[in-house]
Amino acid sequence: MSGESAFIDSLKALAQHPAACGLADDAAVLEIGREAIVLTHDMLVEGVHFLPSADPADVAWKLVATNLSDLAAKGAEPLGVLLGFMLGEDDARFVEGLTEVLEHYGVPLLGGDTSAGGPPRAFGLTGIGRATHRPVPPRGGAQSGDGVYLTGALGAAMLGFEALRDGSDADSTAYRRPMARLAEGLALAPLVSAMMDVSDGLLLDARRMAEASRCSIAIELDRLPLSSAFVAERGQDLAARLFAASGGDDYALLLALPQDIDPVTLSLPSRTRITRVGSLAAGGVSLSLTHAGESVKLPERLGFEHAWNDDRGPSAAPMADRS
Amino acid sequence: MSGESAFIDSLKALAQHPAACGLADDAAVLEIGREAIVLTHDMLVEGVHFLPSADPADVAWKLVATNLSDLAAKGAEPLGVLLGFMLGEDDARFVEGLTEVLEHYGVPLLGGDTSAGGPPRAFGLTGIGRATHRPVPPRGGAQSGDGVYLTGALGAAMLGFEALRDGSDADSTAYRRPMARLAEGLALAPLVSAMMDVSDGLLLDARRMAEASRCSIAIELDRLPLSSAFVAERGQDLAARLFAASGGDDYALLLALPQDIDPVTLSLPSRTRITRVGSLAAGGVSLSLTHAGESVKLPERLGFEHAWNDDRGPSAAPMADRS
Repeated sequence: MSGESAFIDSLKALAQHPAACGLADDAAVLEIGREAIVLTHDMLVEGVHFLPSADPADVAWKLVATNLSDLAAKGAEPLGVLLGFMLGEDDARFVEGLTEVLEHYGVPLLGGDTSAGGPPRAFGLTGIGRATHRPVPPRGGAQSGDGVYLTGALGAAMLGFEALRDGSDADSTAYRRPMARLAEGLALAPLVSAMMDVSDGLLLDARRMAEASRCSIAIELDRLPLSSAFVAERGQDLAARLFAASGGDDYALLLALPQDIDPVTLSLPSRTRITRVGSLAAGGVSLSLTHAGESVKLPERLGFEHAWNDDRGPSAAPMADRS
Repeated sequence: MSGESAFIDSLKALAQHPAACGLADDAAVLEIGREAIVLTHDMLVEGVHFLPSADPADVAWKLVATNLSDLAAKGAEPLGVLLGFMLGEDDARFVEGLTEVLEHYGVPLLGGDTSAGGPPRAFGLTGIGRATHRPVPPRGGAQSGDGVYLTGALGAAMLGFEALRDGSDADSTAYRRPMARLAEGLALAPLVSAMMDVSDGLLLDARRMAEASRCSIAIELDRLPLSSAFVAERGQDLAARLFAASGGDDYALLLALPQDIDPVTLSLPSRTRITRVGSLAAGGVSLSLTHAGESVKLPERLGFEHAWNDDRGPSAAPMADRS
């Protein structure tokens, strides 16, 4: 057996429980009594997801935020996290970042494990949340006729990744310290037919939503919400838009809303930016792109795993993918 | 900051939620609606917890069994696990072991994450359970006058560890494939005043129970249940008993029962071996030993972390310890 998709396929037989969602969703959803518990686990590995020179406080922040983003996509309220931690040189700095991010989101540390070992060091975090709306928004619930929306804006994380990679002094905050859109996820959960977070690139994640929903998704690239920093740096022509749409790490929420819902009329958390970027149709699973009304060929690479060992190929995957 | 106890101390400020039990218990216990969810996370790191030459199927087994043992100590019924996995050479063999252990315990895989990285490879597992009895048995609930009991027998895992370390052909199954005492934990949970699993050595874990319960524990070494393989190999004199009592990895359950409960009269799962090994008293936190009625000095080392890098000192700890 080689490769992680083969590995994940081989795990699917162990994941027949409905809560596992076939290992093909952002998180597991476990029905307990009258509650639904949402569970997610993500790893960050030195040399793969972060450089040995990374600030451990940033690693801690990202470890927590990426897991909370999965809870956000389920409209879940976080209840706590468990940490798997390999001890190293600058653990106090890790604790500073962990404290910042847990206090920011008001989430307690519930337990975990520590070990010696490495380099490379590997960290794991399990996020536990409580669904606030039932049914819990699935990845695969989008319907023909739905509108496709994004919260937030694209592109800033990609700029930050490149700044770090190239050693430039451009702002890399968006890459190092992503935000989990918990309030937006909570507010949108009762309305959406499908929702997921965009971790690996809009195009890749949109195709995953299309596959899970057995629908086709058409994205209008000229509608994409781009971060102002990205526009200042790269402009907003078609090439720039394709670049932003196939980048990742922005942790926007991608959602499908029934066509009779206009999010402009919704009461969403203040400063929520929600943008219609496309639509869903019946007729096979596909992803198609337009720009100013013209059809655009799909790029060869739909998404980008921001991995530091990228020359080795995609380096990390969730059970299914990292979304 | 150096050392893991300092690291864990620095985390305690983040773990004020009652569910975290001050990071000093086997597992977190989260009240949700009318249910209590039990959560635990353990890591196994190559070179620390297993040798690079270890059979990946054994690593998978132990990863799951040690987490389920924590659930057993809480009288929890396992609902599922999340896996954090670093891809390697022989992943198919890992999946075989994972399949065996999950099928053995009837527990589904719910999700997780995969990554490249290593060596050393690090694996994490989160166990999720549902408490079957309230209150959930704590580590710190033992009362003066309680009897101290062990399920199962001691010594076999230590023999297995030494066989692997020394390359002998003696049976190492008990070390490689520990059993989680889920049925015993479920049956005992309504009766105990305190319960925990013995992962690091009876003496070390008994002292932890004494500390958490603010009691003194007296262990009668001549009562210890020793595995027949251990007795055949090492005998059962005082030295052998001290060795077995300060070994680890047997994953027995250590429990305190009110003095009016005689476990012989209880309806426990078939083949449950439960042995009274001591008693609890008021008057300060302490651990004391006797053998044939005579006081025995505590050994310098109360427990043994079966770590392959043991020359580097204790190599792994839970948040608090690995129990």
